[in-house]
Amino acid sequence: MTYRLFIAVIACAGLQAQSGLEIETPDRKVSPYVLERLGEADRILFDKLARAPLESVWSQLESRGYAHCFINELDALHPDRRLVGRARTMRYLPTRPDLREEIYAERKQLNYVSAEEAQPGDVLVFDAGGDTRSAVSGEITTVRFLARGGTGLIVDGALRDVPEIAGMPLQVYQRRGQASSVRPNLMSVDYQVPVRIGNVTIRPGDLLLGERHGILVIPAALAEEVVDAALAKQDLESFQRKLLLEGRSIYGVYPPDDDTKREYEESLKGTPSR
Amino acid sequence: MTYRLFIAVIACAGLQAQSGLEIETPDRKVSPYVLERLGEADRILFDKLARAPLESVWSQLESRGYAHCFINELDALHPDRRLVGRARTMRYLPTRPDLREEIYAERKQLNYVSAEEAQPGDVLVFDAGGDTRSAVSGEITTVRFLARGGTGLIVDGALRDVPEIAGMPLQVYQRRGQASSVRPNLMSVDYQVPVRIGNVTIRPGDLLLGERHGILVIPAALAEEVVDAALAKQDLESFQRKLLLEGRSIYGVYPPDDDTKREYEESLKGTPSR
Amino acid sequence: MTYRLFIAVIACAGLQAQSGLEIETPDRKVSPYVLERLGEADRILFDKLARAPLESVWSQLESRGYAHCFINELDALHPDRRLVGRARTMRYLPTRPDLREEIYAERKQLNYVSAEEAQPGDVLVFDAGGDTRSAVSGEITTVRFLARGGTGLIVDGALRDVPEIAGMPLQVYQRRGQASSVRPNLMSVDYQVPVRIGNVTIRPGDLLLGERHGILVIPAALAEEVVDAALAKQDLESFQRKLLLEGRSIYGVYPPDDDTKREYEESLKGTPSR
Amino acid sequence: MTYRLFIAVIACAGLQAQSGLEIETPDRKVSPYVLERLGEADRILFDKLARAPLESVWSQLESRGYAHCFINELDALHPDRRLVGRARTMRYLPTRPDLREEIYAERKQLNYVSAEEAQPGDVLVFDAGGDTRSAVSGEITTVRFLARGGTGLIVDGALRDVPEIAGMPLQVYQRRGQASSVRPNLMSVDYQVPVRIGNVTIRPGDLLLGERHGILVIPAALAEEVVDAALAKQDLESFQRKLLLEGRSIYGVYPPDDDTKREYEESLKGTPSR
Amino acid sequence: MTYRLFIAVIACAGLQAQSGLEIETPDRKVSPYVLERLGEADRILFDKLARAPLESVWSQLESRGYAHCFINELDALHPDRRLVGRARTMRYLPTRPDLREEIYAERKQLNYVSAEEAQPGDVLVFDAGGDTRSAVSGEITTVRFLARGGTGLIVDGALRDVPEIAGMPLQVYQRRGQASSVRPNLMSVDYQVPVRIGNVTIRPGDLLLGERHGILVIPAALAEEVVDAALAKQDLESFQRKLLLEGRSIYGVYPPDDDTKREYEESLKGTPSR
Amino acid sequence: MTYRLFIAVIACAGLQAQSGLEIETPDRKVSPYVLERLGEADRILFDKLARAPLESVWSQLESRGYAHCFINELDALHPDRRLVGRARTMRYLPTRPDLREEIYAERKQLNYVSAEEAQPGDVLVFDAGGDTRSAVSGEITTVRFLARGGTGLIVDGALRDVPEIAGMPLQVYQRRGQASSVRPNLMSVDYQVPVRIGNVTIRPGDLLLGERHGILVIPAALAEEVVDAALAKQDLESFQRKLLLEGRSIYGVYPPDDDTKREYEESLKGTPSR
Repeated sequence: MTYRLFIAVIACAGLQAQSGLEIETPDRKVSPYVLERLGEADRILFDKLARAPLESVWSQLESRGYAHCFINELDALHPDRRLVGRARTMRYLPTRPDLREEIYAERKQLNYVSAEEAQPGDVLVFDAGGDTRSAVSGEITTVRFLARGGTGLIVDGALRDVPEIAGMPLQVYQRRGQASSVRPNLMSVDYQVPVRIGNVTIRPGDLLLGERHGILVIPAALAEEVVDAALAKQDLESFQRKLLLEGRSIYGVYPPDDDTKREYEESLKGTPSR
Repeated sequence: MTYRLFIAVIACAGLQAQSGLEIETPDRKVSPYVLERLGEADRILFDKLARAPLESVWSQLESRGYAHCFINELDALHPDRRLVGRARTMRYLPTRPDLREEIYAERKQLNYVSAEEAQPGDVLVFDAGGDTRSAVSGEITTVRFLARGGTGLIVDGALRDVPEIAGMPLQVYQRRGQASSVRPNLMSVDYQVPVRIGNVTIRPGDLLLGERHGILVIPAALAEEVVDAALAKQDLESFQRKLLLEGRSIYGVYPPDDDTKREYEESLKGTPSR
Repeated sequence: MTYRLFIAVIACAGLQAQSGLEIETPDRKVSPYVLERLGEADRILFDKLARAPLESVWSQLESRGYAHCFINELDALHPDRRLVGRARTMRYLPTRPDLREEIYAERKQLNYVSAEEAQPGDVLVFDAGGDTRSAVSGEITTVRFLARGGTGLIVDGALRDVPEIAGMPLQVYQRRGQASSVRPNLMSVDYQVPVRIGNVTIRPGDLLLGERHGILVIPAALAEEVVDAALAKQDLESFQRKLLLEGRSIYGVYPPDDDTKREYEESLKGTPSR
Repeated sequence: MTYRLFIAVIACAGLQAQSGLEIETPDRKVSPYVLERLGEADRILFDKLARAPLESVWSQLESRGYAHCFINELDALHPDRRLVGRARTMRYLPTRPDLREEIYAERKQLNYVSAEEAQPGDVLVFDAGGDTRSAVSGEITTVRFLARGGTGLIVDGALRDVPEIAGMPLQVYQRRGQASSVRPNLMSVDYQVPVRIGNVTIRPGDLLLGERHGILVIPAALAEEVVDAALAKQDLESFQRKLLLEGRSIYGVYPPDDDTKREYEESLKGTPSR
Repeated sequence: MTYRLFIAVIACAGLQAQSGLEIETPDRKVSPYVLERLGEADRILFDKLARAPLESVWSQLESRGYAHCFINELDALHPDRRLVGRARTMRYLPTRPDLREEIYAERKQLNYVSAEEAQPGDVLVFDAGGDTRSAVSGEITTVRFLARGGTGLIVDGALRDVPEIAGMPLQVYQRRGQASSVRPNLMSVDYQVPVRIGNVTIRPGDLLLGERHGILVIPAALAEEVVDAALAKQDLESFQRKLLLEGRSIYGVYPPDDDTKREYEESLKGTPSR
Repeated sequence: MTYRLFIAVIACAGLQAQSGLEIETPDRKVSPYVLERLGEADRILFDKLARAPLESVWSQLESRGYAHCFINELDALHPDRRLVGRARTMRYLPTRPDLREEIYAERKQLNYVSAEEAQPGDVLVFDAGGDTRSAVSGEITTVRFLARGGTGLIVDGALRDVPEIAGMPLQVYQRRGQASSVRPNLMSVDYQVPVRIGNVTIRPGDLLLGERHGILVIPAALAEEVVDAALAKQDLESFQRKLLLEGRSIYGVYPPDDDTKREYEESLKGTPSR
């Protein structure tokens, strides 16, 4: 899923160095299976999200007052996959007979319900309060979710069947795995309500952007605007990166002073940047 | 709030001991201020709860399938006070501008609402997900709550104004204190819904029995039955305690064999137990 | 150190209640031993700090951009004492022979130096990085510090001789106690530099205001201004508290609406407030 | 060690999707080196354990009263390896001169003894109480263990020489690695006694089934029965998985209703299931 | 249990101070009930232990190679009580049906056995691996233990009936309290074996010296020697403390230079020290 | 970066085994890009460090009194890379406006300064006190650092742009990743001072040797001597490993008895070892 972007052979006069620096750049895109199932608007949005620099989007959100929007307390199952999706949320509580009975008289466990009702591009978000004594979901319901076009699982708690789930084309976040079913310790209580995952609030419908180090939570109403703003800065950043790899001092280059800006604009005229 | 129950001078022949063992027994009762404000049925129930041995009530609940009913992750502000009350619950989430705005357009912060609407004997239960970066409530709203007849605060998170709250006739549980107001990190989201406090689910209306080591959560529908069952065993236990303090072996006495049961029944005939 | 402020007998018509609410209010003042040793300016400042409502001072600091100013990760040795003092800081690191040798060739352990050089009203602040495998100070150096007019110890780590230190007229904060001397695991490296205590930066000379739930860190240059601002609001708050204890609704009273403000102003004319 | 099981091209009418879902299924087997060294009975048992669905075995154990049988607190060194083996246990305690001297007068450190006495298929289980300040074993004794036919290491504590051990055909679980030898902090005290690993009791002779998310502990007397019961359900589950990947609703399929059961039985007649 | 030792009115010329420093010194002694039941040798040893400065004893142990001998991870129930006693140890493990059945076929739960077999001056030491989901002991067995002359409980785990136990003349250490009986999660496995409590090894028969900040573990064979060595330094330390309270610099006084030593020796001639 | 060292086909008579053990041995070397930029002395030292067995170097350090020299609390980004480099240190503290303003009036953020001033072979060491709420550095400054010949990052805290940094030829250690810039929570305070990383002190100029399980900290003055001592033992260890893989008992082989030593010496005569 990653490819070698370029090998920069740098000739540093005094040192007579022969060797270059090799940097691998992640190449992110939405899987065709999901993409084909998305509506027109989502196809465009998800494609942008797949390409957007996560930290730039964070800056856009933070400047709009979203100070608590990045979850870094869970572990990603796949270090090299990006998560792109839309939140479908569930809240779990420690089990007790009276409430359990009332709830299950009305509907099935929410991992069933959410898998069945998932829309293409959805991410199932399980708030189990960090409890890893029981798993909130496993392989079979996730197969159903996958067939529906699901793209990820976020669990503030535990999943079971972890090796089987690791073999599926999803990104997955959790605290730890667990073999135990949900029954001994937890029950699903609320569906599609705001939940807490690792000290961040996720609302149903939020856009989610995940990498190996965590998940950025983007309110749906802001998604287009913050992603566009982040993408707009990419070309300059590539140019800056190139200068640095050529051995330039960081002062003046990042952030760019007037000279660097001028150089950048000239570079745009000369050659198409990528 | 505690008094000396008895000084047992034990004459152990072989040892020629002169000294006795002095045990202090906690004496629990509901404060008159609250008691006078309770309805007839609650007055009886709260009085029983004040006298019931907590661990016996736990046994009654556990045998009915309530395996997760004791919270031991919070710290009690007053080691020597018992909490007796009825749960009024709130759920807090990490703050974000969009949800915050929507919620506060409709109602005030829930520490205000809950203090204002509290009934005599209520305990305010704040589920802040264990977050102690901001406090969910403080002195002034608690004064209002106190005037309404409130008996306690349970916070899976933090309170501010802790010395002032420590001076009030309430039992209080929290993770740690905090000076920060709620605003920078948290917002109140749900009122009177089931919440999680230290891996136990509390529902609105649950009866709560707290001691220095934690809080027992009792479903309202079961309260009378489990408390009565626990109280029914108290006299035998007092008798067993007395035998042990007189130097008897624990084997045969606890649990009681036939001899001990017979002794106990005879003791009931002779003298009024207590 | 605490006294009963008042017993509010509240006549609630419908309930015919006879009992009142009894609230204990902490009474804080600087010890005469310290006060006599302070210079004129400090005597005034320390007296104000002793009376200022901690959370009001927090609000003043937060509104000036000091978002990380309250330490709530350490335990107070005396729940009922307030800490008032000025920071004298030290930084400890895990020990290693080469650095240890260099440092101790030049000066003594910093718990000695700081005790000896302490000025009246000082608080010794030990940043041991949360390490509790070794103690950074103990009884004897603290006796010297006490004689110099010291008012407190803040240790992000451990102290030894804890029962002896608990008997001294100081407020003390630490993670846990320890019997081990400093030698096996730690060494003192820096004196009077900015340090980290429980995710807050303390600079030498900062004013410190501590209660059972934590310590507020006040930059020296702002101390007068934020404390005065906090004290200015005390009378209104006392009036609001009184109204609430008389059974008034919190709405309108806190925060005060126009009616409450008018009532308050009239109350000022009538009787001297306290 | 994994292979692609199948690519399900799903034709979803309305969406005209061309892409299929690709799921990788782990393929587990016991290494030939170990298999050849096992006795007849173990060869059969280990082969079954290698193929058994872990969570199904958990269900069998839980229904027999084994509520605490899955360890999820340690990290697996190889996410893609299954552990199959039999427990050989050791208990370590914080070192102290008197006990250390007595013990080592009688025998060598237990990592030596256990490696030397290991039987083919054994897993060394080190209970170091979670202490990671010292390592309980390292490369060289593990080479000996490997030559004896060992299949894994489980350490509630730390190992040293981690990169070297990572290169060996073993599955390994631990808290964190460590460079320190055992000497400064720990000593081996008991051999082949029941131990605690991450809140589960392991007895010598227990069968162990590990995956990336943890280790299932199976009493030897139950192993055959619970593994057979788990394997018996595999074919139906494969059939259910197939239905779900074809786009069927989860309701009715999992758990199977009468229609699904009938379909399954018919499928068995038609084609040999794998 | 504490008394005022002395009020040092210090006349510091330059400062014209009027106020003195008031230090409370803990006064420790073994309770008469226990003392009368001890044998001759123990009566002497326990009396010394009750008076010995804990940190001085630590120094003696550390210099003999006992680097891991102080437990500071548990909470003391009584900040103002000293624990003096001899260890009677038990090891608990997470419960499982097969082992539980075998063990309980042979003997009762170890909290019963240990209470019944306790000797005067004993401390019950429960190694529950830090697990606080179930309590290992409670009120009734502790009453029996108390009648036998027990002096303390050390639990790396939890106790139930905490308010009742808090009323007894014992010092008690644990992680947190719990209402749950032992049955759901734990079982007692070993009696009178070496155990781990908070990263320190305790052997049966060790002498234990506890204060609010933790417990010092003293091998029986060394007890007399290390306590005597610690007591021998007390008079000089009292003298040094006195000098410091009179306002002397710590340099030269602690550690004592030749002048201080000479002063001390002269003071011994003049007046009886204390 | 790893290769198969050898496949040992072991003929174990009784078992008629056909299969061998396959062990992968890590092959470490300094990257050519860095090597070409190093001075003569460093080129030799770094090459030795790249080949030295980490645990042997630990033994050399420990025997010289460096008991706290291995950091095992951070996570390595690349399990299969060795870190070799020289420490360039920075200290970060929780941000506050007054100090921030003073510092940044004088110099830029230290991640800029350190990247710009880095020498070939340097490792940037960020002491953020374990705080992961903000990142101390990210992609762009690290590109500059890389171009300067940097070899690694050690962060007691968090980095941002983790996938981008993961694509660079560096080894990286941190607690967790983070999307947030440094600004909201932290500021850089000290440059090239001793710092604490996971309970180990790192001084500027220390040599660092990292593997997947942690980082060994080597004082510059001792580096040559301890590495040489460690390398001197490698051949014997390879010989011992070979014997064990051939099925020899560990007793006598490790540690070597006289027979093994003789065998080893003979092996040296016969064939060149490797």
